[in-house]
Amino acid sequence: MPQKFIVIIAGGKGERFWPQSRAARPKHLLPVVGTTPLLAQTLARIKGIVPAKNIFVITSAAQAKSVRTVCPGVPASNIVAEPVGRDTAAAVGLAAALVGARDPHGVFAVLPADHVIRDRRAYQSDLRTAFAAAAAEPVMVTIGITPTEPATGFGYIRRGPAWKTFGGRRLDRVRRFVEKPRLAVAKRYLAAGGYVWNAGMFVWSVPVVAAALARHAPALDAVLAPIRLALARGQRLAPVLRKAYPKLPRISVDYALLEKSPQVVVLPASFDWDDVGAWPAVMKHSAADAAGNVMRGPAVVEQGKNNLVFAEGRHLVAVLGLNDLIVIHTADATLVCPKSQAQHLKALLQRVKSLKGGTRWL
Amino acid sequence: MPQKFIVIIAGGKGERFWPQSRAARPKHLLPVVGTTPLLAQTLARIKGIVPAKNIFVITSAAQAKSVRTVCPGVPASNIVAEPVGRDTAAAVGLAAALVGARDPHGVFAVLPADHVIRDRRAYQSDLRTAFAAAAAEPVMVTIGITPTEPATGFGYIRRGPAWKTFGGRRLDRVRRFVEKPRLAVAKRYLAAGGYVWNAGMFVWSVPVVAAALARHAPALDAVLAPIRLALARGQRLAPVLRKAYPKLPRISVDYALLEKSPQVVVLPASFDWDDVGAWPAVMKHSAADAAGNVMRGPAVVEQGKNNLVFAEGRHLVAVLGLNDLIVIHTADATLVCPKSQAQHLKALLQRVKSLKGGTRWL
Repeated sequence: MPQKFIVIIAGGKGERFWPQSRAARPKHLLPVVGTTPLLAQTLARIKGIVPAKNIFVITSAAQAKSVRTVCPGVPASNIVAEPVGRDTAAAVGLAAALVGARDPHGVFAVLPADHVIRDRRAYQSDLRTAFAAAAAEPVMVTIGITPTEPATGFGYIRRGPAWKTFGGRRLDRVRRFVEKPRLAVAKRYLAAGGYVWNAGMFVWSVPVVAAALARHAPALDAVLAPIRLALARGQRLAPVLRKAYPKLPRISVDYALLEKSPQVVVLPASFDWDDVGAWPAVMKHSAADAAGNVMRGPAVVEQGKNNLVFAEGRHLVAVLGLNDLIVIHTADATLVCPKSQAQHLKALLQRVKSLKGGTRWL
Repeated sequence: MPQKFIVIIAGGKGERFWPQSRAARPKHLLPVVGTTPLLAQTLARIKGIVPAKNIFVITSAAQAKSVRTVCPGVPASNIVAEPVGRDTAAAVGLAAALVGARDPHGVFAVLPADHVIRDRRAYQSDLRTAFAAAAAEPVMVTIGITPTEPATGFGYIRRGPAWKTFGGRRLDRVRRFVEKPRLAVAKRYLAAGGYVWNAGMFVWSVPVVAAALARHAPALDAVLAPIRLALARGQRLAPVLRKAYPKLPRISVDYALLEKSPQVVVLPASFDWDDVGAWPAVMKHSAADAAGNVMRGPAVVEQGKNNLVFAEGRHLVAVLGLNDLIVIHTADATLVCPKSQAQHLKALLQRVKSLKGGTRWL
């Protein structure tokens, strides 16, 4: 009987929730929604599915220290820092190597660290279903989210014919993966039905991932080989990663493996889900005043509605005569932008970077 | 030959430049324009017209300490704190009492502390002309500002027929004082010509003010009597002011004296003038970037124009996708409002006051 593992991908550049998020403190380390970091919420949500020693967290060098603090229950050696970011295919390859060293037939889930999911019972039930499928058959199981709007920020998965049933839940074959669509296309998908969002949640076995890497991503696989070897020999991992990682191609797991594999099935999630992609998403999860203003810390809004106003410490943020505005004050930086622009902080942060000593604020 | 005096009125509630200005630190104590407090700029501007011992500054109890720091050249006993604010007629009555105790025939100018005037030479020339007129004739001399726009924030003075010439400058009789007009009326004045703004700059003698108080404001005059008596006897002023001031009627000098006196003349100013009434006015006096953004401290604006963005210390303020916005960050409070609302901070500050412990920020 293969062992079960969960690998949490806890990376990110800390741009989308700037100035609260920073390079060394991205979204999953912040209580963007709720009172604990999203990573801590993710760990609480999976509790009981696998033993703590079978939980891995893959993060970045800059974030590793904070991640350890947030994950006191996870063995320190299970928290692995990528020396440089190389997109999700590399992380999945590393995950397979880590799990494979513990159980060459292990089944593992890859889960993002920074999503908001409230229905823990449904989430755990879906995960168990996916584990059962991935343990029984040589497939890649994706957990897809039923769209609620024509989002253009996610990839879509087109469901195919029914595949099999596990624990009373039916999984479908995947007809195809679609990269982030234009709005018109997203609207068509929403109207047509039969599409789910790709939320980056996968369950599969070490042999299935290993075979797919060898077949569909041989360049990636070759660079991963010394990492697997070091793990098999019980050598220290960090020096091997430092040497191998820069050579890994930057490629997403969707593109490298899932789109190319005929063995992908999808379980439509039965739980609520929000990836909380940018500041405005926080408003959905927060209590607002009568005018729709969401405030944290000492904040006032006069003659304004639907604003998000955060103030830190004993600093007052006072907004007058403005609507649909984001104002985020932190100890050393303040962001002011309209909600409609909150998805596009990149250009602003480039500007900050270009200031003398500007990286201090990033 | 009567002595000359200058009395600077340095009051204000510190609301219009919040959060930089506070109850104890209003506009005249701030370098809103330039690098020194506006009060210091005012003192520098009058230098040489009267000896330092003939300069008085009337301020409030809350501001007195800071005012003394800003006015090292003015004798401490010449800086007089009103225990409570009672509008400009009370301040002028106090000014006349202070000057009268030094020279019963003294001629004195009453000047605001918080205006921006760059042409010092023209300013001093106009002041000397006004002093000459007020010393030669029993008149109230106002220095009026030629309007450059249909402002609704100032009173207007309608010039009458020519009165006399002093030092080559012609002064006119005043036909009437007009309180802050509606926009349509202000536009008519601007088109018609013959109107100047009332900038609160007056030059007159002690006997002229004393007679006007006795005749047009007997209630005010009666409360001022013990103050004059205490000054004549060389008694300590503070206890007398504390007792008398609360009894003084709240009334402006325009309404109490100037509108009622037939002896008012006007000298149209030959200098530039700006009362810097609110945050947007600061932009006129500051260098802007190519997009019209005026910034102080660590500030960036991306995809935005004509914004005023101030940051204090090493705190970064980053604005994205917004135009015509005011963002003022200070150590303990930040204001965000559109330029069009910057004249209307009162309601916002009422809201701040209503917060638990909200006076901390006022």
